[in-house]
Amino acid sequence: MKEKIERVQQVLKEHKINSWIVFCHHSYDIHSKYLLEKNITSATFIMIKQENKPIVITSRMESMMIDNDVYDVIAYKTRSELIELLKNSLSGLENGKKIAINYVPKDNLFDNFSMDILPAGTFEFLTSLNNNINWVSAKDIIRDVRSVKTKKEIENHRIAAKLAEELMEKVVEQKIKPGMTEKEIKALIEYECNKRGGIAFEAIVASGENSAIPHHHASKTKIKENQVLLIDYGVSYNWSNSDITRTYWIGKNPPEEVLRVYEAVDAAKEAAYKHIKAGVFASEVENAVRETMKEFGYDPEKYFIHSTGHPLGIETHDVGVGIYKASETVADKRLIENSVVTVEPGLYFEGKFGVRLEDDCVVTKDGSIRLSNTPKKIITI
Amino acid sequence: MKEKIERVQQVLKEHKINSWIVFCHHSYDIHSKYLLEKNITSATFIMIKQENKPIVITSRMESMMIDNDVYDVIAYKTRSELIELLKNSLSGLENGKKIAINYVPKDNLFDNFSMDILPAGTFEFLTSLNNNINWVSAKDIIRDVRSVKTKKEIENHRIAAKLAEELMEKVVEQKIKPGMTEKEIKALIEYECNKRGGIAFEAIVASGENSAIPHHHASKTKIKENQVLLIDYGVSYNWSNSDITRTYWIGKNPPEEVLRVYEAVDAAKEAAYKHIKAGVFASEVENAVRETMKEFGYDPEKYFIHSTGHPLGIETHDVGVGIYKASETVADKRLIENSVVTVEPGLYFEGKFGVRLEDDCVVTKDGSIRLSNTPKKIITI
Repeated sequence: MKEKIERVQQVLKEHKINSWIVFCHHSYDIHSKYLLEKNITSATFIMIKQENKPIVITSRMESMMIDNDVYDVIAYKTRSELIELLKNSLSGLENGKKIAINYVPKDNLFDNFSMDILPAGTFEFLTSLNNNINWVSAKDIIRDVRSVKTKKEIENHRIAAKLAEELMEKVVEQKIKPGMTEKEIKALIEYECNKRGGIAFEAIVASGENSAIPHHHASKTKIKENQVLLIDYGVSYNWSNSDITRTYWIGKNPPEEVLRVYEAVDAAKEAAYKHIKAGVFASEVENAVRETMKEFGYDPEKYFIHSTGHPLGIETHDVGVGIYKASETVADKRLIENSVVTVEPGLYFEGKFGVRLEDDCVVTKDGSIRLSNTPKKIITI
Repeated sequence: MKEKIERVQQVLKEHKINSWIVFCHHSYDIHSKYLLEKNITSATFIMIKQENKPIVITSRMESMMIDNDVYDVIAYKTRSELIELLKNSLSGLENGKKIAINYVPKDNLFDNFSMDILPAGTFEFLTSLNNNINWVSAKDIIRDVRSVKTKKEIENHRIAAKLAEELMEKVVEQKIKPGMTEKEIKALIEYECNKRGGIAFEAIVASGENSAIPHHHASKTKIKENQVLLIDYGVSYNWSNSDITRTYWIGKNPPEEVLRVYEAVDAAKEAAYKHIKAGVFASEVENAVRETMKEFGYDPEKYFIHSTGHPLGIETHDVGVGIYKASETVADKRLIENSVVTVEPGLYFEGKFGVRLEDDCVVTKDGSIRLSNTPKKIITI
C-alpha cells in the first residue's frame, strides 16, 4: 500500500498538482478500495498530498479497518462531525492550490468515462467548501497511477490468471453435467473463485444459443447435450483481477461448423499476440484480428460485435489502453509497457451459438507475456 | 417489470415531472438494474415518460438482453452513434419540460446520498444537450417509487429471507468447523446464496475479537474453539435482498458474559418490534432499543456504534426510512407502510467480542411482519 501512495505522490509532483481527493459515500469509488485495500461503505474522504502522511476521514464504525501506519485516520461519529471535518480539511488550504477530484469535464468525457465518478451534487458540495481552490480533474493522475502495473501487481495478475485456469481444469470441468442450470454452474465457479481469493465479476455462463449473447446473464436454462457452453469468469487476487473466457462443447462430437469457428477465433487470438507490443497502436492489433476472421470467411462487422481487449486491473475493465478500432471519435492509442490487457476475440451467430476465447497478458517492450492460455482445441464435456 | 414502469409513470404524474432519465456508463446506477432487471454494463440511457412505452438506448452487444415488450430498444454500434442518439432523444423535447435526473443539489445532499449518482462531468454533458429543459432532481421520484414495496417485491423479500435462514440452518452450520478460515466460510455461504438466487452483499464472517468490528472483512484468520463467530449475509432473490446477522459460539459452553450480551441484544431487538409500526417516528424505535441496552447495564453510546436498522430492497441499504437516532442535522422520519427494514442491534467490545442479531421485517399499519427470526438463545457449533 505504501508503494501505491509513493507512486501517487510521484505522479502528483509530475503534474504539479498539490493533492488528490477521493470522496465517496453511498456511491462507489473504486479508488477507495484501490488506496485503502478495504471495502469501506460509509462516507469516506481520502486526501493524498505530495508529501507527508495522507489522511482518511471515515466513520467510527469502519475507522479501525484502515491501516494507520499508512494513513492518519480521523473518525466521525455523526454527520455533523463529518461535515465539520471536511470543512476543516479544506479550509486550511492556501489560495490557488490545485486539488484533483474524480470527475471529467464534458469535453473529455467519452474517452474517460471511468474516471468521472464524483456525483454532481457531491461535486457541488465539496467544491463549495473552499472557493479559492483550483479544482482540477484527477483523470491524468488516475491514468498514470493505474494504467502501469507495479511488479507486485503483475505478480498478483499472474496468480489470479493461474488460479482461474486451475479451478476450471481441476474442479469445474469435472463437475459440469447436462441437466445443471447455468446459474448452478455460475454458483460453483464463483465458489471456487471465492475460495482462492474473490470473484473478479459475476461469471457469464451461456449455453446453446445464449452463447451468441456476449454478456448473457446466467439463467435457469438447463445445459443440454450437443450444445456450446461459454464461460467468462475471473479471480480477484490481492485486488488484481483475471478475466478468462473458455468455450466448451457439451457432448462427444462437435459439429464441423463449431470446430471451424473455434479455429478461426483461436487464429484471431494468435494474430493479436503477433502484434501486441508496447508502443504499437491499438488499431494495428485490432485490424490483425479482424483480417484473420475475414480470411476464415467470417465478416467481423457482422459476427464480432465487440473489441478485442480491455485493460485489466483492480477493475475488470480497468484504466489504460486496450485493443480496439480507432475511429473519427475514438482516438487511436499506443499500448502501454507493463499494462495488463485481455485478448478476447469472439464470433457470434444469433439464434445459434457463439465462441469467445479470452486470455490475459502483460504488454512488454518486446511483445507480451501470456498469463493464461485457452486450449487450442475445443474441450468436450 | 411493467408494474414498475406503471408505478414510475404514476409518480411522475403526481410530481408533475415529464420524464425520468437514468444514464449510466462505466459508473454504476442501481436504477438501470431496477428498471431493466438485467446487469447491463455498456453506456445505457433510459427515458420513462408519463405515457407511452419508455425507451432504452444501449450497445448493440447488450441490446438483445432488454425486454422489448416493455421498452423501445435502440442499439448503437459506435460512440458517435450513441452521442447522436442522445442528442436526438433530448433535442425533440419542448421548452420548459421538467426532466428528472439522478442527482441531488448540495443543500439536500446529506439526507439523500444514495440518489446522487450521475457523475459531475456526465451531468455537465447531459444537461448541455438541451438548455431549454428544466432539469430537476429525481430524488422524490426515486423515494416514492422505491421506498414502498409492491406485493410482488414483499413476496420476494419473504423468500429471500427464508432462503437465507434455510441455507444457514440446513447447510452452513453443519459445515463450520474450527480450523476453517473466515474466508472459507464466506465462500461457502456465498455459494449457497448463489445457488438460491444471488448474494445480496459480500458476507461478513468475523471470529473472536474480529466480531467487535461491525463491518469486518472476512480474513484468513482461522476460527478457533471458545470464540464468538458473527455472520452477516443475505440472499438476493428476484432483485430483492435479505440481510441477516447471526452470532454463534464455537465450542460447548459459552461464558456467562457472552450469554448475557446475547440476551441483551435479543431483548433490544424485541423492544424494537414492540414499537415498529407505520407512522411511528424512527427515533421512538431507536430509543426503545437503547433504553433496553441500558437496562442490561450496557451503555449504547459506548458499545452500540451504529443504528438499529436500514431500509432493504434491491440495494441492501435501500431508499426509504430506517431506524435511527434523530439529531440536529438528521431529521426524524416516520416509518413507511409496506417498506421493508432490518432490525439489527449489536453490542461491541473492542479487543474482545461483539454480538449482533439482525432480522428483516415488513412495516405494516398495525405493526410488522417478521420475515426472519434469529434464535433466542446462542447456537453453539
